[in-house]
Amino acid sequence: MEFSAESIAALIKGKVEGDPQAAVYTFAKIEEGHPGALSFLANPKYTHFIYETKSTIVLVSNDFVAERPITATLIRVQDPYEAIAHLLEIVKQATTQLPTGVEQPSFVAEGVDLPQGVYVGAFAYIGRGAKLGKDVKIYPQAYVGEGVEIGEGTIINPGVKIYHGCKIGKRCIIHSGAVIGADGFGFAPDADGTYSKIPQMGIVEIGDDVEIGANTTIDRAMMGATRLANGVKLDNLIQIAHNVQVGRNTAMAAQAGIAGSAKIGDNCMIGGQVGVSGHITIGNRAQIGAQAGIPNSVKEGVRLLGTPAVPALDFAKQCALMKRLPDLFNRVESLEKQKK
Amino acid sequence: MEFSAESIAALIKGKVEGDPQAAVYTFAKIEEGHPGALSFLANPKYTHFIYETKSTIVLVSNDFVAERPITATLIRVQDPYEAIAHLLEIVKQATTQLPTGVEQPSFVAEGVDLPQGVYVGAFAYIGRGAKLGKDVKIYPQAYVGEGVEIGEGTIINPGVKIYHGCKIGKRCIIHSGAVIGADGFGFAPDADGTYSKIPQMGIVEIGDDVEIGANTTIDRAMMGATRLANGVKLDNLIQIAHNVQVGRNTAMAAQAGIAGSAKIGDNCMIGGQVGVSGHITIGNRAQIGAQAGIPNSVKEGVRLLGTPAVPALDFAKQCALMKRLPDLFNRVESLEKQKK
Amino acid sequence: MEFSAESIAALIKGKVEGDPQAAVYTFAKIEEGHPGALSFLANPKYTHFIYETKSTIVLVSNDFVAERPITATLIRVQDPYEAIAHLLEIVKQATTQLPTGVEQPSFVAEGVDLPQGVYVGAFAYIGRGAKLGKDVKIYPQAYVGEGVEIGEGTIINPGVKIYHGCKIGKRCIIHSGAVIGADGFGFAPDADGTYSKIPQMGIVEIGDDVEIGANTTIDRAMMGATRLANGVKLDNLIQIAHNVQVGRNTAMAAQAGIAGSAKIGDNCMIGGQVGVSGHITIGNRAQIGAQAGIPNSVKEGVRLLGTPAVPALDFAKQCALMKRLPDLFNRVESLEKQKK
Repeated sequence: MEFSAESIAALIKGKVEGDPQAAVYTFAKIEEGHPGALSFLANPKYTHFIYETKSTIVLVSNDFVAERPITATLIRVQDPYEAIAHLLEIVKQATTQLPTGVEQPSFVAEGVDLPQGVYVGAFAYIGRGAKLGKDVKIYPQAYVGEGVEIGEGTIINPGVKIYHGCKIGKRCIIHSGAVIGADGFGFAPDADGTYSKIPQMGIVEIGDDVEIGANTTIDRAMMGATRLANGVKLDNLIQIAHNVQVGRNTAMAAQAGIAGSAKIGDNCMIGGQVGVSGHITIGNRAQIGAQAGIPNSVKEGVRLLGTPAVPALDFAKQCALMKRLPDLFNRVESLEKQKK
Repeated sequence: MEFSAESIAALIKGKVEGDPQAAVYTFAKIEEGHPGALSFLANPKYTHFIYETKSTIVLVSNDFVAERPITATLIRVQDPYEAIAHLLEIVKQATTQLPTGVEQPSFVAEGVDLPQGVYVGAFAYIGRGAKLGKDVKIYPQAYVGEGVEIGEGTIINPGVKIYHGCKIGKRCIIHSGAVIGADGFGFAPDADGTYSKIPQMGIVEIGDDVEIGANTTIDRAMMGATRLANGVKLDNLIQIAHNVQVGRNTAMAAQAGIAGSAKIGDNCMIGGQVGVSGHITIGNRAQIGAQAGIPNSVKEGVRLLGTPAVPALDFAKQCALMKRLPDLFNRVESLEKQKK
Repeated sequence: MEFSAESIAALIKGKVEGDPQAAVYTFAKIEEGHPGALSFLANPKYTHFIYETKSTIVLVSNDFVAERPITATLIRVQDPYEAIAHLLEIVKQATTQLPTGVEQPSFVAEGVDLPQGVYVGAFAYIGRGAKLGKDVKIYPQAYVGEGVEIGEGTIINPGVKIYHGCKIGKRCIIHSGAVIGADGFGFAPDADGTYSKIPQMGIVEIGDDVEIGANTTIDRAMMGATRLANGVKLDNLIQIAHNVQVGRNTAMAAQAGIAGSAKIGDNCMIGGQVGVSGHITIGNRAQIGAQAGIPNSVKEGVRLLGTPAVPALDFAKQCALMKRLPDLFNRVESLEKQKK
């Protein structure tokens, strides 16, 4: 099915620049453009591709100023990234039909209620006392332990494991291989060098509209709850230790790790492979760059880099000076020689 | 069910300070305390919470000296962390009943013996020639490959995968998503730039009382065995490569990675996100701080930080000097100017 | 079954030095040698073991010069690592029989064709429209989503999850817990601090002869495809973000992470725990050392270390100078004092 520039512009409140009847049937990245495809330009790094892309239509910002002729028809919008997201969502809604009903064989414990719109895939396991909201989708091979609660519209992808007693909010998406509620890593050292396990009696509580990436692990609390607030977005392979609290709308990139009882504020951005120490506090809106290590509490709104982390500008300066370090040693040696 | 301060003190050999009849029915972290809850104070960082906690009872160290009035009834013990572990364990024993028997549908290969107390959850797979000890619990969707041996009392959580031939000791706990015995990463480069796979013909051998975190991976040996000794504790998302040896009671925090054929000593503590190079030796009781990188063998009892790792005190000094580096450049420049 | 030095030498085009009738029945690492075992010496770090190994036969390089008497019979070859790989492969072929047929219960959607030699393990799920090549092995509890294509001879180990629409080439091996095609991490920030999900409408395309380690995650593209070219080898717990492109025969060690839309060249070697930023290009044959962080594009053939990464030699120099930094501060202070 094809859509004209004109009709697309209407959907995203854009202005057509070029042929209003230019038609597309699919999406493509601007650097992989081809006739019949719609692309977008949001990241300035990719600007040079707009002059050579073979895509039929490109979404650009109102601010974009062409420096050379462009073959594609443009649609100007305020925020091309938001506009493409909106278009993709429309297409997704139109083309995707989520499954409902119960595939066999699956295991649903006696007494568990399956409200309207619920899907239970083959080989999924739903333990005693679990409570599922309307339209919850439990894909094949997922495990929902005893007493787990899952809010309306949440999607549990194939193979997700949720240990007993954990609570998941509404409209969440949990990707394959994520493990929610395994035991926190708590041991008391004994005199003979062995360890005694500290039973982990708490749970994990996840708010609404949370997305959790593939193979991410979120441990249950020792007591109380490990908590992810509404709107948190976690990428893949992230570790959230026991009793951690993550504030609203905080996003973490892949392979970040948050140690036990740390409190992360609202609207923080935590980069990939970042490590945060236990029992510390990260203020709201903090931005922690990739691979940084955070040993101590940090304030609201900071931007940090490095291990141990320092303000991002200081880090850049340190890196620049590191490159000049050999020269500095030479200069000091030269000063010393002049002394003699 | 409620328990009095007096009765709790008797269980953990503590001394009540306050109302011996003060009663609790649950646990809470000291900072989340509420009436009817028992809390503990072990980490000095949390001391200020004791003056405001709403918990009814708090376990504190014999050494603790209150600086202000405290509402809660105290129970003094030698080690509050150990005492709370002991109490949690009592409650866990009293309230948890591990499942037994075989849920359907599950797959148990012909000839596999299921001794007393064994549980096989729905959708679990137990291959030919597997040997399970008494009271082994195989939760739903776990995979136990051909010829795998699992010792008495070991718990295999939902979705754990154990490849053929691997051996797991007694009383181990393996968390969801852990993969034991996948092929080691071994390839021989060919002249044309491609790689030939080196078959990984060894196994993984895990001792007794080992705990393995969610989504941790332990590769099978190329030949011989990748070995975890008794009492090893691994957190989540850890990588143990082929032919690694980990000594008794060594603990590793989440996302640490140990490259092939490395030997880690006994009673080491490996921090989160640490990387250890292949074919090196880490001495007994070494402590490696979070995110450190260990390129070469290190001796017994060292405390290291940084990449490449240096003694922890040197690392602290280097970090302090790094902050003063811009100033040093200025000072040298100033000396040079005076020269002219 | 036993094999003589003579017969083994014939298989790998080697020359026997010692008893041609010396016989072995198994393999052992040189440091764990025992009578009846065959070992090899490839890594110079292990040379000293050859004088004490109890193995009956040791494969060594043509260049090897003994400095002391050796008990074992030697077989000299050009490349001992390649030779042992070849021998292990012969033994593996002779001793391993891959399963075929369909175990029950499993789920194969109506209309899916199962060609000759295919294995579908118990509790495996194969969605509508999936296409499997000859001799594809789908182990227990694996998930093959709607419309997934898997080429001839590929092995999908227990519990692997492949989301809808992804394409896997021929002769690949995918290890347990790997997740192929989960949603890329894409969100557009809204004015109120929440995020809108960007639908991830693309797929993952994996070439031939690719191996993917346990619990590694490869996200589907936002549009188009996340691509791994022929011959790519990925270790465990690696993150490949949406729209990443990985060139032919590139190998990555465990826990490396590649951010969105990065392009990695051919025949690169990426070390363990390395982080690569999004939207950058890594040239062919680049070698990135363990734990390095790559913020910007890098050229062909570079060897880098550190965060942010610098040429490996510069990194070594910087590390050496860091150790002398306290001394440098003292020297500058001393120069300043002399000034007065």
